[in-house]
Amino acid sequence: MKIIYSSKHILHATENITLDGQPFVVEELPARAEIILAALQNATLGPILPPEDHGLEAMLAVHDADFITYLRNAYVENAAWLGYEEAVIPGTFAVGRRDMPPPVSIAGKRGYYAFGIGSPILAGTWEAAYWSAQCALTASDTVLASERSTYALCRPPGHHAARDLYGGFCYLNNAAIAARYLQQRTQSRVAILDVDFHHGNGTQAIFYEDPAVFYSSLHADPRYEYPFYWGFAEENGAGAGLGTNLNIPLPKGTKDSAYLTALDRALEALGAFAPTMLVLSLGLDIAEGDEVGGMEITPMGFRAIGKRIAALNLPTVIIQEGGYRLDMLGANAIAILETFA
Amino acid sequence: MKIIYSSKHILHATENITLDGQPFVVEELPARAEIILAALQNATLGPILPPEDHGLEAMLAVHDADFITYLRNAYVENAAWLGYEEAVIPGTFAVGRRDMPPPVSIAGKRGYYAFGIGSPILAGTWEAAYWSAQCALTASDTVLASERSTYALCRPPGHHAARDLYGGFCYLNNAAIAARYLQQRTQSRVAILDVDFHHGNGTQAIFYEDPAVFYSSLHADPRYEYPFYWGFAEENGAGAGLGTNLNIPLPKGTKDSAYLTALDRALEALGAFAPTMLVLSLGLDIAEGDEVGGMEITPMGFRAIGKRIAALNLPTVIIQEGGYRLDMLGANAIAILETFA
Repeated sequence: MKIIYSSKHILHATENITLDGQPFVVEELPARAEIILAALQNATLGPILPPEDHGLEAMLAVHDADFITYLRNAYVENAAWLGYEEAVIPGTFAVGRRDMPPPVSIAGKRGYYAFGIGSPILAGTWEAAYWSAQCALTASDTVLASERSTYALCRPPGHHAARDLYGGFCYLNNAAIAARYLQQRTQSRVAILDVDFHHGNGTQAIFYEDPAVFYSSLHADPRYEYPFYWGFAEENGAGAGLGTNLNIPLPKGTKDSAYLTALDRALEALGAFAPTMLVLSLGLDIAEGDEVGGMEITPMGFRAIGKRIAALNLPTVIIQEGGYRLDMLGANAIAILETFA
Repeated sequence: MKIIYSSKHILHATENITLDGQPFVVEELPARAEIILAALQNATLGPILPPEDHGLEAMLAVHDADFITYLRNAYVENAAWLGYEEAVIPGTFAVGRRDMPPPVSIAGKRGYYAFGIGSPILAGTWEAAYWSAQCALTASDTVLASERSTYALCRPPGHHAARDLYGGFCYLNNAAIAARYLQQRTQSRVAILDVDFHHGNGTQAIFYEDPAVFYSSLHADPRYEYPFYWGFAEENGAGAGLGTNLNIPLPKGTKDSAYLTALDRALEALGAFAPTMLVLSLGLDIAEGDEVGGMEITPMGFRAIGKRIAALNLPTVIIQEGGYRLDMLGANAIAILETFA
């Protein structure tokens, strides 16, 4: 199995952020990708390849141009406004108000394009996010060129990012960018399966009215867990996309067997959609003991999950999403990826 | 002139807040009200009276019941969820998503009812906000009983709070509660004039489709200043309320004479509405040197503003909103209030 990885992710340097001189903790650390990379190298799962540069076009098929421009320029604009460099963290949000043109000032843009305070925009965030998306696109190329499955070691992750809204450690929606790219190139139906602990509200929003892309997510019940305002079972698509969105909220602490039962439901619906290709949003934060996530999935559980998805026998682009229990990231990644290899 | 004041505001103890063990700075301090109170006592402007308890009814004419319940219980619910007491500060917001029933868990409620992170809910916030609103209602009673004008020394302020959304140091919308109360009791037209540095987005939202209440605000241009997403000149009401909302955005740093020219525009439109009563949202953060606000209004400017508003010759409930330059709060409050006395 080919693995697409770029060290550019390190530019999104979330380890030692300060805000107003105080530490600002972000669990989504560079070490996450480095730990998975080392495990993949050890396991000799396949060649580790750099992404090719596809430019902005495929991103613009998913995200608004002004949003992309914002992500590119926010750090510098913010520093010019403040008079010093600092992580961009908004404080005021356009809740209940999106029917306006994008703000002209950085002061207004900050909270217009975000839905939370937890995802700092740093000096290197744009470049890291850009190459993370390029990893997803390059993995898509290999699958279009008849690889059975390819793993994009994306960082930062993407599934919380919507058309013009970022949050949840996500800036560009790598899975959505890949799915749209595959769907446009094959002119066929594409499915996205999201097994991250958290609902992929961005991915859902992007394809909510789209009949060509099926989105199904297993995730912690948003009544109690992040992202709180999206991910309910009642959300099943709209307009031409009605019926192409399937949310399966699960209790925090769900164990292997109950998780697999729910997965079977998602896979059955996904199969009925008859996609020609699959994008897997792979969150490893369903692992037991993950402090940001918290299902109780064991390495054996990850293996079983992988086997069932691989049994769909669909060309599959696997996109790394969350996963924060550093000491198990490598083992769990290998457990699931080996079933595709 | 009667002055309505309650020391309960001190329960909203914003001086020494810590969050995750770090200081969390809030400019809206108890000292604000105490400084104004002392100046009023010195100036012997009139009797200082406590509010009477009107219960929840008048608040429920403006705010949703579930929002009120949230404000009452948030601190305790949040502490039970965390396992320790801490200021309630949300991190994730329902941006672009309000067509859902209110969340069931405190984790979800926190960001559903707020549009920013700057307004902590503390142990005493509900009681302080409750009595702040009662000050506005008691002041309204005196005007209904034929006082010419009464000043409610409200703290916390209110004009950023909407039907089910708080922020900008505001929890209950004192001015909106007073205006609705006056309008219902007189069955006549009521106008609200808002001279706070910041747009009163909550007040605007509450009456946006209401033909019986005119709202006009002079404020810093929201393209560059808080609250960023509301307060544009194009927002002139909707439905039956079309034409009953007048926003006059001004550059930061606007001086007395330009401010008065804009005020004349607002007063002319307000007069054309032919209200029988007026609510004045009095922000003192238009004062020169106010670090949170920042028009350049001098004490003479405040006097001139007061004179022009008083010349409307309408029964007027004056509601304290913002104002953060502590060393000038007293003098500026006296300068404007004396013109009504």
